[in-house]
Amino acid sequence: MTKQELVENIQRKRSFLCVGLDTDIKKIPEHLLQEEDPIFAFNKAIIDATADLCIAYKPNLAFYESMGVKGWIAFEKTVRYIKKNYPDQFIIADAKRGDIGNTSAMYARSFFEELDIDSVTVAPYMGEDSVKPFLTYQHKWVILLALTSNKGSYDFQMTEDQNGVRLFEKVLRKSQEWAGDEQMMYVVGATQGRAFEDIRKIVPEHFLLVPGIGAQGGSLEEVCKYGMNKSCGLIVNSSRGIIYVDKTANFASASRMAAQKVQEEMDIELKKYNL
Amino acid sequence: MTKQELVENIQRKRSFLCVGLDTDIKKIPEHLLQEEDPIFAFNKAIIDATADLCIAYKPNLAFYESMGVKGWIAFEKTVRYIKKNYPDQFIIADAKRGDIGNTSAMYARSFFEELDIDSVTVAPYMGEDSVKPFLTYQHKWVILLALTSNKGSYDFQMTEDQNGVRLFEKVLRKSQEWAGDEQMMYVVGATQGRAFEDIRKIVPEHFLLVPGIGAQGGSLEEVCKYGMNKSCGLIVNSSRGIIYVDKTANFASASRMAAQKVQEEMDIELKKYNL
Repeated sequence: MTKQELVENIQRKRSFLCVGLDTDIKKIPEHLLQEEDPIFAFNKAIIDATADLCIAYKPNLAFYESMGVKGWIAFEKTVRYIKKNYPDQFIIADAKRGDIGNTSAMYARSFFEELDIDSVTVAPYMGEDSVKPFLTYQHKWVILLALTSNKGSYDFQMTEDQNGVRLFEKVLRKSQEWAGDEQMMYVVGATQGRAFEDIRKIVPEHFLLVPGIGAQGGSLEEVCKYGMNKSCGLIVNSSRGIIYVDKTANFASASRMAAQKVQEEMDIELKKYNL
Repeated sequence: MTKQELVENIQRKRSFLCVGLDTDIKKIPEHLLQEEDPIFAFNKAIIDATADLCIAYKPNLAFYESMGVKGWIAFEKTVRYIKKNYPDQFIIADAKRGDIGNTSAMYARSFFEELDIDSVTVAPYMGEDSVKPFLTYQHKWVILLALTSNKGSYDFQMTEDQNGVRLFEKVLRKSQEWAGDEQMMYVVGATQGRAFEDIRKIVPEHFLLVPGIGAQGGSLEEVCKYGMNKSCGLIVNSSRGIIYVDKTANFASASRMAAQKVQEEMDIELKKYNL
């Protein structure tokens, strides 16, 4: 998907919501456990209930891998289901990969070639040659971890170098040598508040993938205030706040209501910025 | 596996070699492609040919994931085969994972509970709460990326903070607050030469997992000179230099010869240090 297409989807759907498919067999409604593939059955119901309200889906690979082969099958079925039925959705494989060049190339092949996924989250610790293999595919995206939403983000990401540049700022600067805003996005946690201002000084045009509203406590309004740009520039993710609001047979419509509430707030924010 | 058991295995087998199972369907001998599961068939042959010469196997998940469900099946079969037939082998899932707490917990469940693997490589960028869930399992190990073997290691890992502490040094120091040398190891690339001296000042007792000899150009002798400690303290990995030395029907015995050559060098190094 191109940046232009993504922006058009956001404007048309009045939403920049990404639904995080962090599907955990221990948390889905009990009646689904009778299904042949409970994880896929859950995902399909959530997707069908929310697809007109969001512009992206983000399965987190950890949840699928924790179930071994079965989980991997459910992951692939989910991706194929979205691509076939909702081709305007931007799919993010939240994998946080990053390895030496020849190994990153294997991951890129897996996500971009085998599954035709739009984007992969990548960890920056190993530097340029761990990221570059993901950048050889046209209209495919790297979403690089910059400043994450968790408490541990303070351990290393906030470390200042001798010029007072924090590590996440160095990641933002350095990675712009590898690709521009048509191929790279950054993960910035919604819990990071005012840091968005500093980040927008370094990457004014890029899209940011923002996890951490809802269960993790970030505020949508604050994220928009400091993070939105003239193309919106934000994909805001909610996982637990949407997919686990109800555990009855009614779970899908409850998820729809939760997604709709966020979408309506997003519409207000988009209007504030004349989008 | 405990540290004590690992050290005993090294002394008994006169080896601290880890064979990296970076198995790529495009690189294995052609005649194996007729097998039902060519990846597992290749791994099994390599393992049977090298198990008495090495103390660890390290499948890199990227290679298996790039094949989707089939790859994941081959990975699980490989792990189970090693555990059943060579229970003294230390198994490293080279996954370079690291995510927010609840997600890292899913990965930990996958590797340590479902598959009973001994250790997982973890990326430190997201800090404490991304690592800690891996530390709740007795006799299971986190192998944290510190200073990797690739060119990109210079992009961020070498960045000095305001006290002149490099990021990889900060990772070594900070992570010692989370676990000791009975539960944590560090990845240090063989290509990093003299940095081993600085690293041993910070983590004198820990085991280091050292990739990068062979294809990547690191020297075993230099690694031992600066990195070995009184318990050996080194697991040195070779992947391409062992598993892909021959593409004929004779590949397994060729791999054995390559492994034996490294093991003999390791025996010499161990003797130098009275081990």
